[in-house]
Amino acid sequence: MLPSKAQIIELGPRDGLQNEKQTVPTEIKVDLIHRLVDAGVTKLETTSFVSPKWVPQMGDNTEVMNAIQRKPGVVYSVLVPNMKGYEAAVLTKPDEVTVFGAASEAFSQKNINCSIAESIERFAPVVEAALAAGMKVRAAMSCTVGCPYEGEIAPERVDYLAGLLKNIGVQQVAVADTIGVGTPLKVQRAIEATLKHFSVDQISGHFHDTYGQALANTLAAVQMGVWQHETSVAGLGGCPYAKGATGNVATEDVVYMLHGMGIDTGIDLDKLIDAGQMISDFLNRPSGSRVARALLTKRASAACA
Amino acid sequence: MLPSKAQIIELGPRDGLQNEKQTVPTEIKVDLIHRLVDAGVTKLETTSFVSPKWVPQMGDNTEVMNAIQRKPGVVYSVLVPNMKGYEAAVLTKPDEVTVFGAASEAFSQKNINCSIAESIERFAPVVEAALAAGMKVRAAMSCTVGCPYEGEIAPERVDYLAGLLKNIGVQQVAVADTIGVGTPLKVQRAIEATLKHFSVDQISGHFHDTYGQALANTLAAVQMGVWQHETSVAGLGGCPYAKGATGNVATEDVVYMLHGMGIDTGIDLDKLIDAGQMISDFLNRPSGSRVARALLTKRASAACA
Repeated sequence: MLPSKAQIIELGPRDGLQNEKQTVPTEIKVDLIHRLVDAGVTKLETTSFVSPKWVPQMGDNTEVMNAIQRKPGVVYSVLVPNMKGYEAAVLTKPDEVTVFGAASEAFSQKNINCSIAESIERFAPVVEAALAAGMKVRAAMSCTVGCPYEGEIAPERVDYLAGLLKNIGVQQVAVADTIGVGTPLKVQRAIEATLKHFSVDQISGHFHDTYGQALANTLAAVQMGVWQHETSVAGLGGCPYAKGATGNVATEDVVYMLHGMGIDTGIDLDKLIDAGQMISDFLNRPSGSRVARALLTKRASAACA
Repeated sequence: MLPSKAQIIELGPRDGLQNEKQTVPTEIKVDLIHRLVDAGVTKLETTSFVSPKWVPQMGDNTEVMNAIQRKPGVVYSVLVPNMKGYEAAVLTKPDEVTVFGAASEAFSQKNINCSIAESIERFAPVVEAALAAGMKVRAAMSCTVGCPYEGEIAPERVDYLAGLLKNIGVQQVAVADTIGVGTPLKVQRAIEATLKHFSVDQISGHFHDTYGQALANTLAAVQMGVWQHETSVAGLGGCPYAKGATGNVATEDVVYMLHGMGIDTGIDLDKLIDAGQMISDFLNRPSGSRVARALLTKRASAACA
């Protein structure tokens, strides 16, 4: 039985833009966020409170959070790497904070210089403080099917990580294929391992499209009842620490598939495409969304007819 | 229960190259065919015997067929549009001929200037002659989920077309999403309609990637037991008569997904990527396969390390 509804968790303004070489001015980020919400997005990562030394593109995190006009009911989420980031984030009153952990020990070491268990321990006070302050807490589990250093990741590693996250009070987790190497059955096994600790309503899929598999993997997740999908408008993004990783699956392509399957997202695809086109134009490159490219071609030829 | 094996029906040398603007010399086509077979492809469309007035890129059909060194067991298939094409084709001794029909009346009229029923009647003597000569006969059913002129196509239209094709003796049919607008459930309904007339072993999927849905649609087909997949190396191709259509799903991306799911294709992915790179280099453009782009990046960085 497929879910009848889905929620997009839009990552473009954070996971997307943080990996772009070009600096994007605050007002463009704010415009993008406004357009996404206007298109019907009800949950999005707006920025991250990682040190600007590591992620300079998110250095205007406080400015972005203070500049956006919030729509009631929409969840504005921010990524925080540690207690220091949390303390800066909380002043901007996000609805949710996102923490993270890797299913791969080597990735954890290379990315944040500590073991998986240590990284989760460090996040425990962040989760505690956020929950006490009435915020939601989500965690991204990276490298749940493959790792650039270790290769294939066993579902047992995902089970282990999901258990640690559940234990510190995380309410929702993303099963992320950070380097996009996953295929449908492997992704389903990672989700199965996560289901030992979280209900299907607490799980989102997060698939990068490096090997073109992201939409097939999204379908595989939908077939397990997953209805929350982490995507980036125009396919923005990637991970600067994961060699050869390209952007998240494009929001437009996921929305098109879901609508075609009769699954309601509440999103106006045309407005979404306009939002993606604005940021693609700013970055001076074609959209990473095939749906956007196909429908913009159609619009252009209709305008000529 | 997923199939444990799959067969790629490689369309690059025909559906792919016929839609390229650049003229590809016969020796490059022959080299591509040899490389594909060397990579493990066991069935491929080598050329078409459509009038060079309509499809100049396939004007060297006889030369290509005569120049290729055939490997025993491999099925070398050619597209024929009518009796005249068949008569030219038969001299080159193909193992299979492919005929075609549209599930959309408007597409049939615009593409070949006659109704669906008339088009199938015209193919009847071709099918009869090919079967009498001991050849296999496959048919491509175009626009089985959507049509550039009529929009969405009902499964009943696919049922009707499949019945007509069965009736004239066609042994195998491709369920084609010619303009790439389909999504997984719609594709499954088109396959279901086809299953009223043909067994699952007689059905192949043929999905264009215009809206980025082709791999998800391939997965949906696999989940119905379909194990024959029509694909183009490097994502070559498209349909010049279908506005906004882009190439077939890339063979590399399908093979990567199937292997990742434990489904054997008999294909050496590295050799396949080399074949795709040869033709992409010739056409002076990046490969349309994300798997090829990702693995070539990986190869390049390994070579530097």
